[in-house]
Amino acid sequence: MNTAFLRAAALSALVLSTAARADEPQTTAWRILADLTTEIGPRLPGSPREAAARDWAVARLSALGLANVRSEAFPIQGWVRGEEQSRLTAPYPQALHITALGNSAPTPAGGISGELVYFPSFQALQAAPEGSLKGRIAFIDHAMRANQDGSGYGPYGQARRQGPSVAAAKGAVAVVIRSIGTDHNRDPHTGVTNFAKGAAAIPAGAVSNPDADLIARVARTGKPMQLALTLTGKPQANLPSGNVIAEVPGRDPSLPAILLGCHLDSWDLGTGAIDDASGCAIITDAALRLRAQGQPLRTVRLLWAGSEELGGFGGQAYAAAHADQPHALAMESDFGADRVWRVRFRLAETNRPLADRVAAALAPLGIVRGNTVANGGTDVEPIIERQKLAVIDLDQDGTRYFDLHHTPDDTLDKVDPAQLEQNVQAWTAVLGIVANEPGPLGGQ
Amino acid sequence: MNTAFLRAAALSALVLSTAARADEPQTTAWRILADLTTEIGPRLPGSPREAAARDWAVARLSALGLANVRSEAFPIQGWVRGEEQSRLTAPYPQALHITALGNSAPTPAGGISGELVYFPSFQALQAAPEGSLKGRIAFIDHAMRANQDGSGYGPYGQARRQGPSVAAAKGAVAVVIRSIGTDHNRDPHTGVTNFAKGAAAIPAGAVSNPDADLIARVARTGKPMQLALTLTGKPQANLPSGNVIAEVPGRDPSLPAILLGCHLDSWDLGTGAIDDASGCAIITDAALRLRAQGQPLRTVRLLWAGSEELGGFGGQAYAAAHADQPHALAMESDFGADRVWRVRFRLAETNRPLADRVAAALAPLGIVRGNTVANGGTDVEPIIERQKLAVIDLDQDGTRYFDLHHTPDDTLDKVDPAQLEQNVQAWTAVLGIVANEPGPLGGQ
Repeated sequence: MNTAFLRAAALSALVLSTAARADEPQTTAWRILADLTTEIGPRLPGSPREAAARDWAVARLSALGLANVRSEAFPIQGWVRGEEQSRLTAPYPQALHITALGNSAPTPAGGISGELVYFPSFQALQAAPEGSLKGRIAFIDHAMRANQDGSGYGPYGQARRQGPSVAAAKGAVAVVIRSIGTDHNRDPHTGVTNFAKGAAAIPAGAVSNPDADLIARVARTGKPMQLALTLTGKPQANLPSGNVIAEVPGRDPSLPAILLGCHLDSWDLGTGAIDDASGCAIITDAALRLRAQGQPLRTVRLLWAGSEELGGFGGQAYAAAHADQPHALAMESDFGADRVWRVRFRLAETNRPLADRVAAALAPLGIVRGNTVANGGTDVEPIIERQKLAVIDLDQDGTRYFDLHHTPDDTLDKVDPAQLEQNVQAWTAVLGIVANEPGPLGGQ
Repeated sequence: MNTAFLRAAALSALVLSTAARADEPQTTAWRILADLTTEIGPRLPGSPREAAARDWAVARLSALGLANVRSEAFPIQGWVRGEEQSRLTAPYPQALHITALGNSAPTPAGGISGELVYFPSFQALQAAPEGSLKGRIAFIDHAMRANQDGSGYGPYGQARRQGPSVAAAKGAVAVVIRSIGTDHNRDPHTGVTNFAKGAAAIPAGAVSNPDADLIARVARTGKPMQLALTLTGKPQANLPSGNVIAEVPGRDPSLPAILLGCHLDSWDLGTGAIDDASGCAIITDAALRLRAQGQPLRTVRLLWAGSEELGGFGGQAYAAAHADQPHALAMESDFGADRVWRVRFRLAETNRPLADRVAAALAPLGIVRGNTVANGGTDVEPIIERQKLAVIDLDQDGTRYFDLHHTPDDTLDKVDPAQLEQNVQAWTAVLGIVANEPGPLGGQ
C-alpha cells in the first residue's frame, strides 16, 4: 500500500487546479505545450491533424527565431481508427470500455462474438497448445505496476506488442488485453501491436483496468464467458507523414552537431500533452536558453519526429536522410514532463571528465548519476546506431506516466509547470557543456 | 497544493491493486457489493437492468435469512440514454468527451450546431439578458473543489440542476456544463437536471473536466467558438421501477421500527459501486450483525430504494405506501464507502442521553460528533418529513466521492475494504443502541 500511497501523493500534488490558469507560466516550453495541445490536439501518424501539426510546428519554430526550419516528408504504412464497442454477453451482460490497438485488423461492421478465454499473463498464452484458440477470443491479463523508471513497460508490454500475434498463431479470431497502464480509470490505453510475418492479423483491443478487473473476477467463477466485439479500425498504406527540423547554428559548423529528439505525432485519444508535446517543448526551450547565453560552439539540431507511435518511422527517416551528415551526440525527451531524477551516459572512456562535469552541473537540480548505459530513444536510436554517437539520457520520473500514456487522459492539466521547468533547466545545463565542448565526443 | 496532495494521498492509499483480489474480504457487505456490481452492473431507473437488480436483491436478501423480503412496484417518468457526441468545430477542431444529463431533451439524430457562449458560473448565466442566447449553446463553467463533507455539491451543482432550465429560458438551443466533479479524467459526470414548469426542455450535457479546461482556455482567446452536439437520449413515460424491502423482526412488534435506507438503482455509466451498492451493503451487513447479537427489541427495516437517481421516486413511493405504519427513526447510507468521520442527530431534547450513548459508542471508531442537524437522505426524507422521525446521520468522508460520482469510474476497485468495514461497524454500533431502546424516539 505504501508504494501506491506515495505514488498518488506525488501524482496529485502535481495536477493543477483548473482555476489556477490565471497564473499560467509564460515560458517557451509551456506556450508550446499549451498551444499545440489546444490548437491542434490529437495528431495520429499519417492523419490530416499530424500534417496540421507540422505546419503549426514550422510556424512556431520560425517565429521563435530558430534557423533552417523545415519539414521533411516521408510516407508511412498507417492505421486509421474506426468504431469501437465491446460487451461481455455471458455469464453477465456488461458493457466494456475498449479501444483498438494500432495495426489491429478490422472486425466486420456488425462485429464478431465468441468465447472469451482468460490468460493471466502473456506467458500463459504462449504456453497454450497450438490450435487451442480456434474460433475463440483470447484475453490477456497482466500485473504491471508503476515504477519510477518505467521498467514495467518492457516485460508487461509484451501482452500488447506480441500478444495479438501469438494469439492469432494459435487460432484466435480476436484478442483483448488488459490495458498496458497503471491507473484505475475507465479509459483504455491504446498503442501499437505488430503481427509476425506470416501470422494473420486479427482484431486486437485493450480494455480499461476496471473492465479487466471485471473480466478477471468473472473468470474466477469458472463460468464460460462470451464477448461481442466491434473494432473497425484498419491499416492504410501510403499515408503522408514527416519530420520537422530546426537549428541553433554553432560558431564552428565543421564540428559535428548535437541532436535533440522528441516526437510531434501522438495517439489520437488524448491531446498528446505528456506524449510528447512536452518533450518538444523541453528541448526547444532549452535550445533557446542556450542561444540566449551566446552562440554555442556546436550546432544544436532539433528533431520533432513524425509517426513515432506507429513504429518510429520518423527516426528511421531522419537517419536515412541525414546519414552523411556528422553528428556528435544525441539526446531525446519522450517520457512525459515530470522531473528529471537521473542522468546516464554513453560516452567514450576518454570523455569521462566531460560526464563528470555534466553530472556535477545537474546535481543542484536533484539529479543523480545512474550507472547503466544511456540509450537515447526511438527517434534518435537509428542515427545513434548508424553513427555510433555519444548519448546522454535525462531520465524523467515515470511513476505516473503509465497512468496517462496513450489514453484520453493525456491532456494539458496533467503537466506540472514546476517540473516542466526543472526539465528545461536540466537540458539547458547539459547543452551548456556539450554544445561548447571542442574535443571529440564519441559513444562507447 | 497541500489540500490536493493530502486528498490524493488518501485517495490512492485506498485504491486496491487489481492483483490483490486473492485476499478479497468475505464479509456480507463486500459480497453484496462485489456480486451486485459484477452480476448486474449498471441499473438505470426504469430499465430492465434495474428490474434484474430487484430480482437479484430479493434473492440475496432472502438467502441471507432476512424476513418479509419483497419488492414493491411503482411506475416512474423515466429517461433513456442515446447517442452522445460533441466536437468543438471552431476556432480549433477538438473532440469532446460528453454525456447527457438525465431529462435532457434529444437533439435530432444528425445533431445540432451553434455558437458556444462561455459563462464562468451559473450566476453569470443567470445575469445574461433575456433572449441573449437565442439560437446559441450555453457553456456553464464552475470551480467546484473536493470537500470532506461534500458541501460543494449543493452550490456548484446548480449548474447541472438549474442551469439547463435557465439557459432554455434565455433562448439557448442546448446547454453544456463542466461536469459536477472534482477529478481530472476524461470521463464526464452525468446526473439529473430539471426544467422548470413552462420552460422548454433542451438538450443538456456535461463534458469532462479536461474538456472543460480546453473550452475555458479557448474562451480566453476571445475567438468565437462553434460546437456540434448530438445527444439523442430522451424522457420516456411510465417505466417500471420498485423498492426492495427486508426486515430483522424485533421482539416487540408494537414498537415503531427503525428504517435504514440506501438505493439499488444507479446511473448507467459505471457499475454503481460507490453510488450506491456500498450503501445497501453497509446497512444490510449491519442489520445482520445486530441480529447475530440476539433478536433486537425493535424491528429493523431495510429499504433498498429504486429510481433515486432520477428524482428520489423510491423514497416518495415508500412514504406513500407505508404512511400508516409507525416508524421511530430513519438513517441512510448514500455517500460512498469511505469511512464515517462524523455523527449528527435529529432527536427530541429528551433523547439527549441516547445521543450521548451513541456518540460514545462511535468515538473508538474515530468518529466525531457534529453540531448541525441530521437530515437523512433522499430515500428516507419523505417518510421522515411525513412522520417527523428521529434521524441519525453517519457522515462519510466525501473527499474523493465527487471524483467518481455518476461516472464510468464508479466501479468496485474504488472501494477500500477496510473503510467499508468501518462503516459496517459504525452502523452496527448505532443499531445496537437504537434498536434496543424501549423509550420513545422522536425527531425535533
